Amino acid sequence: MGNVRVTVWNECWHEHNTEIVPKIYPDGIHGAIAAALREEGGLEVRTATLRDPECGLSDAVLTATDVLVWWGHMRHHEVPDDKVERVVGRVWEGMGFVGLHSAHYSKPFQRLMGTQCGLKWRVDNKKEILWVVDPTHPIAAGINEKIELPQTEMYGEWFQIPAPDELVFIPWFEGGEVFRSGCCWKRGKGRVFYFRPGHETLPIYHHSDVRRVLRNAVRWAASR
Amino acid sequence: MGNVRVTVWNECWHEHNTEIVPKIYPDGIHGAIAAALREEGGLEVRTATLRDPECGLSDAVLTATDVLVWWGHMRHHEVPDDKVERVVGRVWEGMGFVGLHSAHYSKPFQRLMGTQCGLKWRVDNKKEILWVVDPTHPIAAGINEKIELPQTEMYGEWFQIPAPDELVFIPWFEGGEVFRSGCCWKRGKGRVFYFRPGHETLPIYHHSDVRRVLRNAVRWAASR
Amino acid sequence: MGNVRVTVWNECWHEHNTEIVPKIYPDGIHGAIAAALREEGGLEVRTATLRDPECGLSDAVLTATDVLVWWGHMRHHEVPDDKVERVVGRVWEGMGFVGLHSAHYSKPFQRLMGTQCGLKWRVDNKKEILWVVDPTHPIAAGINEKIELPQTEMYGEWFQIPAPDELVFIPWFEGGEVFRSGCCWKRGKGRVFYFRPGHETLPIYHHSDVRRVLRNAVRWAASR
Amino acid sequence: MGNVRVTVWNECWHEHNTEIVPKIYPDGIHGAIAAALREEGGLEVRTATLRDPECGLSDAVLTATDVLVWWGHMRHHEVPDDKVERVVGRVWEGMGFVGLHSAHYSKPFQRLMGTQCGLKWRVDNKKEILWVVDPTHPIAAGINEKIELPQTEMYGEWFQIPAPDELVFIPWFEGGEVFRSGCCWKRGKGRVFYFRPGHETLPIYHHSDVRRVLRNAVRWAASR
Repeated sequence: MGNVRVTVWNECWHEHNTEIVPKIYPDGIHGAIAAALREEGGLEVRTATLRDPECGLSDAVLTATDVLVWWGHMRHHEVPDDKVERVVGRVWEGMGFVGLHSAHYSKPFQRLMGTQCGLKWRVDNKKEILWVVDPTHPIAAGINEKIELPQTEMYGEWFQIPAPDELVFIPWFEGGEVFRSGCCWKRGKGRVFYFRPGHETLPIYHHSDVRRVLRNAVRWAASR
Repeated sequence: MGNVRVTVWNECWHEHNTEIVPKIYPDGIHGAIAAALREEGGLEVRTATLRDPECGLSDAVLTATDVLVWWGHMRHHEVPDDKVERVVGRVWEGMGFVGLHSAHYSKPFQRLMGTQCGLKWRVDNKKEILWVVDPTHPIAAGINEKIELPQTEMYGEWFQIPAPDELVFIPWFEGGEVFRSGCCWKRGKGRVFYFRPGHETLPIYHHSDVRRVLRNAVRWAASR
Repeated sequence: MGNVRVTVWNECWHEHNTEIVPKIYPDGIHGAIAAALREEGGLEVRTATLRDPECGLSDAVLTATDVLVWWGHMRHHEVPDDKVERVVGRVWEGMGFVGLHSAHYSKPFQRLMGTQCGLKWRVDNKKEILWVVDPTHPIAAGINEKIELPQTEMYGEWFQIPAPDELVFIPWFEGGEVFRSGCCWKRGKGRVFYFRPGHETLPIYHHSDVRRVLRNAVRWAASR
Repeated sequence: MGNVRVTVWNECWHEHNTEIVPKIYPDGIHGAIAAALREEGGLEVRTATLRDPECGLSDAVLTATDVLVWWGHMRHHEVPDDKVERVVGRVWEGMGFVGLHSAHYSKPFQRLMGTQCGLKWRVDNKKEILWVVDPTHPIAAGINEKIELPQTEMYGEWFQIPAPDELVFIPWFEGGEVFRSGCCWKRGKGRVFYFRPGHETLPIYHHSDVRRVLRNAVRWAASR
């Protein structure tokens, strides 16, 4: 087996429309995620954004992608429906899909779930502790019981998703909430993982354990 | 709690475009299903078809429906997308959805699953034995181990669905296949059940055990 | 269908060996649970304790029990193995089993799970917020999003259980932990529910929402 | 990671008490399974039988085993309970367990399931077609849609097991039955797989696709 070909897709709006995000993520959120994936061997990583031709989702890109990592927040509606169907179709054919943070409301994720994917949220920049509830799951490999994030955005239940096939992480939020935050599903021949951390105004994707989970998730999603 | 309000929806094409179907189902497939549901108390049953105003799926109908039973085969594409979204939205709000037979390819079912829902099939009119694999599931209540259908259409794996939350029936087909034929999922606040039997040119919906499963399924899908 | 016959079993050790527990539960923990179950109709409730003949688990008792509610903590080892096998056998035949709080380490629960059922714990008497993650599950009926317990014992992950068939509650603990706290499984023809709240030195079973969950759980476990 | 250390355990009764089994399996059933596992690299395979010291289940053996493959039929009761507990304890620690054919009634499998594991059966030496219902599961890797066994023993539902975490194979039996035949569970830190084929008087373990599934299953059960 050759390398796993990963495309990290980002709507890349905050990077151009806020002052804070470029400071935290000088190479873009996609750049930080890509760097995390490149820390170890075996993954061949490219990035694509909504600002690219065909919204970064051309047939050429998707056909050459084994796992698509998705970060979106403010511009979900700008992703054309035909591109969404193409992404979903590729998942059915076997492409992995890793939805991060506010990708819960992205069109491809909603389409793959068949639900609204709503949730509670609050920007309070308080502490999060992500507990591992399936310690031998490959996505939790190398994580020792929990991940502590000193400052985070809060996402709370009820998370309107189908019951995950496997549930890997449940976080505790300082403000009083919990959330199903590491969720696995199969859709057609493709594997789907949702991982909650990743708020744009906080350096979540620079955290070593989060980066480890990203690598684990991509490898898991590529498995066939 | 009052009665459960059930709408049996049928595309109602075979009834008007074949000679055989009206002979087997003189009141339409929807009529046979509705009669099955009316055999015991507690269900308030109406029917609707693609030939009705607004394709039988007006807001008035859907709002007054606790469980929607769906039979479609040749005219899936004639159900307008906005009606599909309305049906799916009602499921998320809590309406039950019972998809029968070729409804695996109906737009609402595909939307709720997030998958293509393809399968193998063959019209051979041979025997089917539906085995109960979850004998205490409410949908199997009153069924003694298996249901035998002397003549049936064959549906075979791989059935491209998300792994069911609960699997109730697995049939054996004389020609050599098996299928996941009684499948439960939750989507939002609604319950979804897929039940395979029901070929239009065979008197499947006159079979007493099939009729019992239909009643059980509607009651299960209405539970909240 | 007649009434559901419930037996509330309690090891009843704290009631006789501590000063505090009889003050909080003057009728015993089993008495408080039984009172909760009797608040609405439909349940025929008896109690049994380890101090009764045959440890309260005679064939006569078990045969006349549709749902067994179990509270144990310090005397798990005093329940004879042949009684454990009889309880487990009754579950396989269809008796419901509702394990409460420290019943995670009870022999019948461990036997039904096939795992050790270990967990983290800490007596800190801090706040717990139980979030509903499956809002249409019958066990969550009447609970509005969450249950707040002002003081509780903490139980934390990793909880060494098989992945639940359905997960209903996830609590947040003030001290920083989460837990899978409302878990459903099927074993043979019987339904098993584990519900975490219920520390002996706190008035957990006097809380109206906890009492509601107990009633819901018993009804769910009796369903066949 | 070094090689996966596999122990193939066999009660080894038929080999010494029938005429037919040694003819079909001159190296014992364990010998045939071990040979299948050795066909490709990566697995370090030993065998053990009930006839060995400590029933082949000494601490030295179990401690040095990453995946235990189990074949038993007539002598389940001769496996001492303390050895059973030791096997189960090793699974909780992370050892994989692959139960084959009549191992459904073995003590370790029953203990890990928490159920009776009963089923229907009939020796009719008729055809079996094992359909893949989870085509991207690693245990189905390299299997093209189905496995055909010209002659087999029949196992039928209701199979008294907990609902599998993942269901990989469903067979069709010529005589009219179906069965959940490739079932995955997690117990503690260990993975458990049950695979039905393997009747002692038929050359099932010489079939290339069955041998491939055995290798896949052992690799899957070893994953951590």
